[in-house]
Amino acid sequence: MGADSARPVTAAERSARMQMSRVAEPGDLDACQLVRTFSAVAVLQRLRAANLSQPKARAWAARLADANPDQMARAAERVSARFLVPGDPEWPPALADLRCVETASGDRRAGEPFGLWVRGPGDLGALAGAAVAVVGARASTDYGDHVSGSLAAGCAARGWGIVSGGAYGIDAAAHRGALAAAGVTFAVLASGIDRLYPAGHDGLLEEVASTGLLVSEAAPGCSPSRARFLVRNRLIAALSRGTVVVEAALRSGSLNTARWARDLARPLMGVPGPVTSMMSAGVHELLRQPEAVLVTDADEVVELVAAIGSAPAPVKRGPASGWDAVDEESRRLLDAVPLVAPAPVASVATLAGLAPSESLGRLAELAERGLVIRVGGGWRKPPASDNAP
Amino acid sequence: MGADSARPVTAAERSARMQMSRVAEPGDLDACQLVRTFSAVAVLQRLRAANLSQPKARAWAARLADANPDQMARAAERVSARFLVPGDPEWPPALADLRCVETASGDRRAGEPFGLWVRGPGDLGALAGAAVAVVGARASTDYGDHVSGSLAAGCAARGWGIVSGGAYGIDAAAHRGALAAAGVTFAVLASGIDRLYPAGHDGLLEEVASTGLLVSEAAPGCSPSRARFLVRNRLIAALSRGTVVVEAALRSGSLNTARWARDLARPLMGVPGPVTSMMSAGVHELLRQPEAVLVTDADEVVELVAAIGSAPAPVKRGPASGWDAVDEESRRLLDAVPLVAPAPVASVATLAGLAPSESLGRLAELAERGLVIRVGGGWRKPPASDNAP
Repeated sequence: MGADSARPVTAAERSARMQMSRVAEPGDLDACQLVRTFSAVAVLQRLRAANLSQPKARAWAARLADANPDQMARAAERVSARFLVPGDPEWPPALADLRCVETASGDRRAGEPFGLWVRGPGDLGALAGAAVAVVGARASTDYGDHVSGSLAAGCAARGWGIVSGGAYGIDAAAHRGALAAAGVTFAVLASGIDRLYPAGHDGLLEEVASTGLLVSEAAPGCSPSRARFLVRNRLIAALSRGTVVVEAALRSGSLNTARWARDLARPLMGVPGPVTSMMSAGVHELLRQPEAVLVTDADEVVELVAAIGSAPAPVKRGPASGWDAVDEESRRLLDAVPLVAPAPVASVATLAGLAPSESLGRLAELAERGLVIRVGGGWRKPPASDNAP
Repeated sequence: MGADSARPVTAAERSARMQMSRVAEPGDLDACQLVRTFSAVAVLQRLRAANLSQPKARAWAARLADANPDQMARAAERVSARFLVPGDPEWPPALADLRCVETASGDRRAGEPFGLWVRGPGDLGALAGAAVAVVGARASTDYGDHVSGSLAAGCAARGWGIVSGGAYGIDAAAHRGALAAAGVTFAVLASGIDRLYPAGHDGLLEEVASTGLLVSEAAPGCSPSRARFLVRNRLIAALSRGTVVVEAALRSGSLNTARWARDLARPLMGVPGPVTSMMSAGVHELLRQPEAVLVTDADEVVELVAAIGSAPAPVKRGPASGWDAVDEESRRLLDAVPLVAPAPVASVATLAGLAPSESLGRLAELAERGLVIRVGGGWRKPPASDNAP
């Protein structure tokens, strides 16, 4: 935890941070750095002075009138939302990671939020420490929805929370998958905590709020915008232990979340799909980067986000076959045994390039395992034996 | 090229290598190393001695009677096949790479072949220098066949030969794709050059033989076996500049070809598919290894197998949008412009957190690009503008 979160926040600073969330755009890096350096109280005092020369400061000052902390608190109260700031017990320490990428990413929309509006019974700090982000295309395919839902359900069943953005398509399927598995899921919104977006997801988002959490950096009443979606994406990445992209067209917004995960040094995963599907093209482009890992199920996701070695994914195996424990020489022998007409050991051994003396024992061993049968004085394969490699 | 291929081979050594191809199993590493160290003539002389103590040498000797070089030459002649040995102009220098992996792979079926039986108008050495291996499941899906065929056709259209194994499924689709694009394709068989396997592919393999090449390490008359398929796979990998696996179940034989490509330090590529398809599960497992690269089309394959930098795959881009050249501030402004009711510049600027003075010029610029329109004294979005991120 940083210095901010180590000391409790005064009521004045909490109120000032609330106002800053309205005065500056979410993720405005200049505002973020000023607040961290001088405190929100000090920044607001300065904005109230008459002699602002910088255009940006003047633009912030122009919004001061709309940033009434009492009104904002009442708007939040109406939807039972609370306002968290660094230093609160529920504040996720992981958000401090955003400070490290402020300059590295070269993105001016970055930084740790002034505060977060949250709604629901979940504890944001605890959730963020054990959550996986599942994100992807709005215009998802049935395949993508299916994979997103079952991946989220699988992670939830293993005790992991699911973070997403509440959008149509992959996001919604991920939230629903977690809910179906009786898991915890939280949605990070680009709008104010009192404005559920998209409107068609009222029901889903209310359900998420009733069991998990809704989270927003934007002040109550704020509408979503392209810039706010992009800056919101950094919170999805930061509030999870790793990000999985399920479907994404080239240039999809979910690839922006993927970049944040990468910049935050969180595991970045992608679920492949048919190369003929434009909705998987962005994921495939991502998976061609060395930092992204291909995942196909919840085991593989959990393996990557869990503490190293604590949850290794089971090694995938095809169906076990009688071939498995057969050594090289016996395999050649097996190959040399005819399918139909039994052959004597000498001819089988010659065909296999082995001495007859050592072949008999091997044939007997193969017979014990049902891979060959003895017929009269010869050897043949059992009926319906699969000799294909 | 190694020492073998630098000096021309005597008629006696050529004939002895022909016999060795019948006496020892293809890829028998002991035989391979003995022949390389002492010559095939010397090994055969030794095998004809009466006092062989080693079981393996006795097994080879037992096959001497079947290894009549005149009969083998006549069998090859009947199908217009020729026998190549290291040192022949058509012998692919790339096969010498197999010597380097003999011990590294820990596989006792390895090594450079004694010789190769080839049939068709192609020049094996020239082909192998500009060929891509496309391999995969026999029990392929329609998706896999489609991708294999179009990948092979795309590589062929770019001047690359296609190597595969002539099997049902992905192999056949690859050969057919190359033929459809009027490209060159060659099949490396696990059976003798005079035995086309599988029988259902007579027509396809004859077509491959008439324009490209059939290649086999096994002596004429030999039937395919599991061991021969596996050892054949090393030749597919070695006779190409890189290997693409299109569909493969877990433990599929094509993953064995992939391992050979990796051991030979050739680019190893995989085409993803739905994670719900068992026929892609083996490829996905492969793509989770750091040495395998995900590819989705022929451009990406050619980029990897071509000389470095000579054929970079075009960077994939989504459809270009008016957003692209808009900077951060103008984007915020654009977000703040209402969809329907025009708003004056001052309110748009405040909403965007910008000074009105700098906003007017930016709005005018956005209007020039058709992203906003001026209506009376205000600004709004043009109809049907897509504001979704």
